Amino acid sequence: MKAEIITIGDELLIGQVIDTNSAWMAEQLNLAGIRVAQITSISDHREHILTTLKEATGRADVILMTGGLGPTRDDITKKTLSEFFNTPLVFNQESFDNVDRIFRMRGYSMTLLNRAQAEVPENCTPLLNVNGTAPGMWFEENGKIYVSMPGVPFEMKALMEEQVLPRLKAFSSGSIVHRTILTQGVGESFLAAKIEAWESALPPYIKLAYLPQPGIVRLRLTASGSDRTMLETEISRQTGELYALIGEHIFGEGEDTLEQVIGRLLKQHEYTLATAESCTGGYIAHLITGIAGSSAYFKGSVVAYSNEIKENTLGVAPRTLEKYGAVSEETVFEMAAGIIRQFGVNCAIAVSGIAGPDGGTAEKPVGTTWICVLTPKGAETRKFTFGEHRGRNIRRAALAALDMLRKQLTQIRE
Amino acid sequence: MKAEIITIGDELLIGQVIDTNSAWMAEQLNLAGIRVAQITSISDHREHILTTLKEATGRADVILMTGGLGPTRDDITKKTLSEFFNTPLVFNQESFDNVDRIFRMRGYSMTLLNRAQAEVPENCTPLLNVNGTAPGMWFEENGKIYVSMPGVPFEMKALMEEQVLPRLKAFSSGSIVHRTILTQGVGESFLAAKIEAWESALPPYIKLAYLPQPGIVRLRLTASGSDRTMLETEISRQTGELYALIGEHIFGEGEDTLEQVIGRLLKQHEYTLATAESCTGGYIAHLITGIAGSSAYFKGSVVAYSNEIKENTLGVAPRTLEKYGAVSEETVFEMAAGIIRQFGVNCAIAVSGIAGPDGGTAEKPVGTTWICVLTPKGAETRKFTFGEHRGRNIRRAALAALDMLRKQLTQIRE
Repeated sequence: MKAEIITIGDELLIGQVIDTNSAWMAEQLNLAGIRVAQITSISDHREHILTTLKEATGRADVILMTGGLGPTRDDITKKTLSEFFNTPLVFNQESFDNVDRIFRMRGYSMTLLNRAQAEVPENCTPLLNVNGTAPGMWFEENGKIYVSMPGVPFEMKALMEEQVLPRLKAFSSGSIVHRTILTQGVGESFLAAKIEAWESALPPYIKLAYLPQPGIVRLRLTASGSDRTMLETEISRQTGELYALIGEHIFGEGEDTLEQVIGRLLKQHEYTLATAESCTGGYIAHLITGIAGSSAYFKGSVVAYSNEIKENTLGVAPRTLEKYGAVSEETVFEMAAGIIRQFGVNCAIAVSGIAGPDGGTAEKPVGTTWICVLTPKGAETRKFTFGEHRGRNIRRAALAALDMLRKQLTQIRE
Repeated sequence: MKAEIITIGDELLIGQVIDTNSAWMAEQLNLAGIRVAQITSISDHREHILTTLKEATGRADVILMTGGLGPTRDDITKKTLSEFFNTPLVFNQESFDNVDRIFRMRGYSMTLLNRAQAEVPENCTPLLNVNGTAPGMWFEENGKIYVSMPGVPFEMKALMEEQVLPRLKAFSSGSIVHRTILTQGVGESFLAAKIEAWESALPPYIKLAYLPQPGIVRLRLTASGSDRTMLETEISRQTGELYALIGEHIFGEGEDTLEQVIGRLLKQHEYTLATAESCTGGYIAHLITGIAGSSAYFKGSVVAYSNEIKENTLGVAPRTLEKYGAVSEETVFEMAAGIIRQFGVNCAIAVSGIAGPDGGTAEKPVGTTWICVLTPKGAETRKFTFGEHRGRNIRRAALAALDMLRKQLTQIRE
């Protein structure tokens, strides 16, 4: 099965928005064994949409569209689809109830514009969009599948995951087996060198892809063929070899995140955690509390962006700050000990560093970061030297801290 | 002048790489008064490139291509262009000297493969790529312009800025003027209803686009024509009318963020801020500390994920928690007052809510959130009812809180 993606919206053509939807959709389709042949971004004009639809119909079996839906007058995709399929727009009760529910929840009243949102081309199967007012639409015509979704990423993603991908998988043949291994704290070339011999010996039906992000490298194994059981067995065997080679850098698989993994570990040990954050500014707490149910093990955080707070709330000795500075092994240790005392937990992460762009010195350049992790399993302080970019320094410090905690919580059991 | 962008590379079609080149190029072209009509991402296969080139030739005056150049991709774009223009590949001395220079610099020796990199189609003007070994190529054929550039972002950007854009500007007439207005806390359809009459009265050369994100809707005005001064005057005038209609919902323009705007306001007033966060879990502190220099006005945060911390560190009365609950007007007020006292600041944001997915009740469903903002300009507590999605509830609560602070800090000056 061959797919094409069409993203509709002037905002893409003036460069105001980077099209992240297409990459995400392309990845999901590939994971489902559907090859993406082309991605086309076009303006929200009737003629342009019609031409692009016709061209894509000539090349692909599945055509996914995003954007150009919504209550405002630049909403054009639905009208054009109704013209393309030569079918009228009809009122859809389920979609209307959804718009009505969302509006009641937000305390707004329905307008005529919103009522029009509940209309769909007669030949489509409406896909309920619980996150927004514009319904998804599924069309089957002359053996081809067309899907229209809103361009708002979280609405599109929910529709894809819950409705579009399951339906598409029912149509595709052949097996594709994926396994994604997640590593933290080591670079792509370091990993590549460590697994070079293993990678060269992979059978031809297994492909390896390196997917780097700041601080994290994902290694994705993809096996394709007809015998699913064989593919799964071989992927498992190859993954086992990978763990033997680089196991200490692997924190999880698939959609795991470091904050999920440490959440599981803390629950398992019945430990409680708090963070004392300077340069990460609450980002570690934000990552941890992004996980549903984190209140079972996470008690809170003190973001100490000034020395007074480090002293008064965390109990760091004024002399420590004076003698070693806020970015020092001594200070992060006292911050960690302080948050354990203050919040009555038994695990702590403390971070202090120079996120940049200012504040660096010859001795402690921008990117210098001290991290302390205290748990009933041990105590560790480490110095990192990240880069010059503020946002990436914050992210890398947070990931490094979570990974230190993960390693400390698992070391006894290894 | 109408342009199209073609990005070539399988990595885009499997979702391994997000196409950031196109958005950057589109923005640059628009700023240069050249409208981008379509962006197409295709695989690095000869037939696919040829078809896409033919289609684009039928629609656009300028066709910019990136990718498919370089020794590992087998230089497929260059060979295909030479076929498309029916012209041989010829050796180019200047390109060869450039490849040679780069290889000497990196301490490598030239291989036959690299020598082939210095070949270009005979009908092109080679564009020197000082940052890499693949030259850019400029073609003019039947009144159309074709440009091929490498896909490595910094190589492409340097070629665009130094060579392609100056050449294109010599060809183009006409101007495009953009202005983007940022609103918080109100939906697309609410805004559409409020500005309907104004929008209908816009002159035909000004287009309005709604660009929604969770919690934020951007309104983009685009004027195109030949008289730049007239366009700028008219966009200014129309923007003025927009402010008169929906001014209280506008927090900034262009690339502004709420955290930048409140940072500027706090600095201007010489105020200091701290946050007391329950359901937002440090996200507000994270947003604020993402801004370089925020330590001038931001002192820190207490993330109080348990009642004990609300009592012990923030000084919320046990009786308040018992009588009204953690998600209540009384509790957020005491949290805000407590953080002011504890951290010695004069502005505070306090948030307590049910982020979900669990913890909701009939009386306080998931999404229920109380926010308190205290500053020397006033005190306000507000209740919000967001949705059911944890991540978005956190984001919307944070944006709502920052916007409450913005409004409180600006109200006196309105």
